[in-house]
Amino acid sequence: MKIIGEKINGTRKRVAQAIAERDAAFIQYLACKQAEAGCDWLDVNAGTHPQQEPEDLVWLVDTIQAVVDTPLCLDSANPQALTAALNAVKQTPMINSISGELQRLERILPLVSESGSQVIALAMDEKKIPETSEARVAIVHNILNATHAAGIPDEHIYVDPLAMTLSTNIQSGVIFFETLRSVHAAYPEVHFTAGLSNISFGLPARSFINRAFLTLALAPGLDSAILDPLDGELKAAILAAELVLGLDRHCLNYTRAYRAGVFRSS
Amino acid sequence: MKIIGEKINGTRKRVAQAIAERDAAFIQYLACKQAEAGCDWLDVNAGTHPQQEPEDLVWLVDTIQAVVDTPLCLDSANPQALTAALNAVKQTPMINSISGELQRLERILPLVSESGSQVIALAMDEKKIPETSEARVAIVHNILNATHAAGIPDEHIYVDPLAMTLSTNIQSGVIFFETLRSVHAAYPEVHFTAGLSNISFGLPARSFINRAFLTLALAPGLDSAILDPLDGELKAAILAAELVLGLDRHCLNYTRAYRAGVFRSS
Repeated sequence: MKIIGEKINGTRKRVAQAIAERDAAFIQYLACKQAEAGCDWLDVNAGTHPQQEPEDLVWLVDTIQAVVDTPLCLDSANPQALTAALNAVKQTPMINSISGELQRLERILPLVSESGSQVIALAMDEKKIPETSEARVAIVHNILNATHAAGIPDEHIYVDPLAMTLSTNIQSGVIFFETLRSVHAAYPEVHFTAGLSNISFGLPARSFINRAFLTLALAPGLDSAILDPLDGELKAAILAAELVLGLDRHCLNYTRAYRAGVFRSS
Repeated sequence: MKIIGEKINGTRKRVAQAIAERDAAFIQYLACKQAEAGCDWLDVNAGTHPQQEPEDLVWLVDTIQAVVDTPLCLDSANPQALTAALNAVKQTPMINSISGELQRLERILPLVSESGSQVIALAMDEKKIPETSEARVAIVHNILNATHAAGIPDEHIYVDPLAMTLSTNIQSGVIFFETLRSVHAAYPEVHFTAGLSNISFGLPARSFINRAFLTLALAPGLDSAILDPLDGELKAAILAAELVLGLDRHCLNYTRAYRAGVFRSS
């Protein structure tokens, strides 16, 4: 599973402070720690208001690229900020995110297409996040019609079926898995991703729920996730699930990570 | 998921000693701790040689039943020992186990049928444990033909698809899941069970692998397992998986177990 490191996000207080104070050392510390942990992308979210965001996002990109080579995941809904950041990146990034929202598609797809970026596509539109997997799949079909028209190859698309809160709808996990399965069957080249902020919200001992969710999502084909790459137990759960699913030839990823101290026996 | 507590097993040195010395206090301690942890059955394995086994198994049954009401899972291949233990049990037990081995079926099925017991059916025969799920399913078909002929209802059967060692065959998990899925599709009333002694054998940090295996096995329908019921993290993984799969209405099992201190945030 590919990992998008979540830690450089301006909606977090400490990161917002670092952005406001141009505290490069703190941002670079987060970048280095996540890169060392083996991230495939580092999410970069300035979290500032639209007029300030282009400048802040470019500062983050420059600051991170001064210390690590890991590709970035430009996390913004703001075309100006994305355009500025796309001019600053040294490696082809991922863009986070598009959705079925038409205006967003029209403004962001040209940027994805021209830059050759990978892009996260959320299974929601301007109206809402549908409750059923059928409605989410219908939105993904619309998004993929638009990405096809824009000449974006399916293997650049990372569909996020959207893991909603179990404590308000116990079917949230099932809806996620069904959406993933249907999209995977219809578009075998498309990748998948997921965030963990919602699924366990409002419940105790959230880490067990997050691990169970990622473990179960690997079976139908989840192949990336936005998460804390420094969480060794979460990493162990993912590597163990890949092992059990027969995806870790000769058990090398699991045993190497163990020997490298990524996680310990418990 | 129903739990068969694994701790009273004479192949473990400390238990063997307690059986030899008729140390009732130690056996009763294991029985009480496992019953408190919410086991659905307590496995009882004397692990002694065939001539000694009937007497030892009955002593274990009597000793355990003096302190707990939990039904027992009589773990023996020896018809004499099973017959004696079936006469001693206060509640209808589970019998562990039958397989496709004809001689075993002929001798044990009458005991299962007459006692109304539940029974674990291993997906193997006298020859071996097949490498493919197709061959395991074929054996299960044979076993179920025999149980049908003996008038044993499918809901009394707990098929163990057999979780073999990943480190010698990386497909071991996949073969287990495929076998389970096929048997479930053909016999919707049949239950499933699994032991954890083999899957992670020879690998480090085995607990992560065991948790990933049980989590992933819940999705296709594993509904019981033989395990250490005092392992709070394993319990948390199972309850979290049931939650994510939409099987824990109002999240009550998970939140109650957390409040009862079965597991802690990590």
